[in-house]
This record gives sequence, structure tokens and C-alpha cells, in this order.
Amino acid sequence: MLEIEVKARADHLPVKEQLSVMGAVFVGVQHHCDTYFNAPDRDFAKTDEALRIRSVDGRSVMTYKGKKLDTLSKTREEFETPVDGGITRNILLALGFYESGIVKKTREVYRFENMTICLDRVEGLGEFMEVEIGAESDIEGHREQIFSFLANFEIGEEDSIRTSYLEMGLEEI
Amino acid sequence: MLEIEVKARADHLPVKEQLSVMGAVFVGVQHHCDTYFNAPDRDFAKTDEALRIRSVDGRSVMTYKGKKLDTLSKTREEFETPVDGGITRNILLALGFYESGIVKKTREVYRFENMTICLDRVEGLGEFMEVEIGAESDIEGHREQIFSFLANFEIGEEDSIRTSYLEMGLEEI
Repeated sequence: MLEIEVKARADHLPVKEQLSVMGAVFVGVQHHCDTYFNAPDRDFAKTDEALRIRSVDGRSVMTYKGKKLDTLSKTREEFETPVDGGITRNILLALGFYESGIVKKTREVYRFENMTICLDRVEGLGEFMEVEIGAESDIEGHREQIFSFLANFEIGEEDSIRTSYLEMGLEEI
Repeated sequence: MLEIEVKARADHLPVKEQLSVMGAVFVGVQHHCDTYFNAPDRDFAKTDEALRIRSVDGRSVMTYKGKKLDTLSKTREEFETPVDGGITRNILLALGFYESGIVKKTREVYRFENMTICLDRVEGLGEFMEVEIGAESDIEGHREQIFSFLANFEIGEEDSIRTSYLEMGLEEI
């Protein structure tokens, strides 16, 4: 599965007003605590991979993200499975992985057509908007659709942030 | 959690008769398909670790087993979490792990006091009996309890097999 995703800084208040005008459906609010891991045999900061355990309101998922496949978006291969978060952390540490950072955020989720819109308030970093489409192919077509949608919020290609919250947080330190 | 475990070859028919006499409780039958993985940065055959995805009647768990902590039993640290088996396989392969073997078996499970008794019929290897106690400490005391129980089946310390089914299967090839 490909995750075609564009992220940009965005004040949430005007974005929510515009989402309401367009008829986007509010899905819910999630509280994320994301623990990122790095590998014993290579540096994910260099290979552009990510391995994460996300705890969402008491439930956990483990996610692997491959390197980005596109220069204008955050499109990449993604695998995600439900896990027991604490035990999976122990397994990863035993296998030689180590924690590289923790990102905490509140995410408000909306749906519009085939898109998932996430309004993220990230601890220490501020407010962001992410638009995602899950697809098997056609990166370019889906990316164009996302940027066409984002034009409603006066967000253009030049606003696209391909840096992860983890990397942004590490830069802040 | 420690898994204090002793394994030996055993014909199932007389074992079942003795379990019945002793009043062991039959728990159920499971069909296991175990896929073992090796690591990109070290050889689990040398470090005496194991990483496995077990599919049991459609549900999957990922298990990490540390090196054995005892010379007379298979006692070791173990972490196990429910997962989506197919997706977790993809994550492990993306992280550089590779499949080292597959073990298929039918397991009949019994309970007696604080022990779990597994009667395993392993494809290509034959019939075995495993007795396990999960505990936080006291390897020696629990191991003695297991061997005292196994004496009822005329199984002694000299019959204990510390080689995994995976290793036994690889030796057969």
C-alpha cells in the first residue's frame, strides 16, 4: 500500500471553517504518542525509513515506512499492524533497535471524498495539516488531486513539508 | 517473563493415558505454522535467539526468544504480541530480516497444576512432549518441578532436548 501524503503548516481555525463549507466529514480526535526507533545495522535518518510504535488512546500499532518515492510529497510504502505496544518495544530493543525520539500530538481527523485530512497539533512544533490518500499506484495523479484540494486553503507545492515531525523535533533541540 | 520449558521425544498415546490418570485438563488442539526469521546484523543460530511469526488457526503472534539461560532446560526470556501476520512479515523483510525456516505442527494442549503440557506432532520430525511454566524467577525450582512431573512418563534429564524444532528440521535437510 502506498501512502500519498502532503503536509503543510496551517492554522487550524480557518482550515476548519473551510472544511465545514466544503462539507468534509468530521471523524474524531486522537491522542498520539509516537515512539520512533532506529536500526542496529543502518541509520534510518540516512536511509529515509521510519519504524514507529504509535499509542492511540490506549491501543498500539507498529508502522514501517519506506523511503520517500516522490520529491513533492511524502509518498512512501507503509506497513502497519496492531500490536501490544509495551511488548513490541521490548522485542525491538532486544533485536538491537533503539529509541530515536518521541512525538506527542493531538490529531483531528476529517474525510473528504477519498482523502483523509489530519489537523495535527504537535507538542513543541505547532499546528499542521496533512492530507492523505491510500492507493496501490498513480502517485502523480493522486498528488495532483491533493494539491488541487489544498488550493482551497491557499496551500501550494512550495508549502509542502517533507520533513517528519520527528526530524523537525530533533532540529528544535 | 521467563518461559521454563523442557522438551523430549514422546509417543503421544501412552502419554495421553497417563495424563488422563493424573487428571490433567485437556485445553484444545492448535494448528501452528511458524515462520522463523534471522537478523541482518547477527546470526540467531549463533546468538541462540529466535524471532518467529506463529499463525494459529488464522490468528498470528510475533515472538522473540532470548538466548537460553539454563543448561538443562530451554528456559529463556520471551516476548510475544498479537500481530497481523502478513503485514508483520512485510515489516520484518523491509527491516532486513529474512526467513530462515518454516515449522508446521499440530499441538494438543493440557493443563496440570501450574504447568502447560504440549503434545506436538511436527511435520517431518515426529512426536514430542513439552512442559512449560511461565514465571518471573526461580528457574531451578520450576525446572525440578517439571522433571519431577516428567518422571511419571519415564522421561529424565538425559532425554531433554534443547534443540529447537527449526534447528532439528534444518539438520534433517
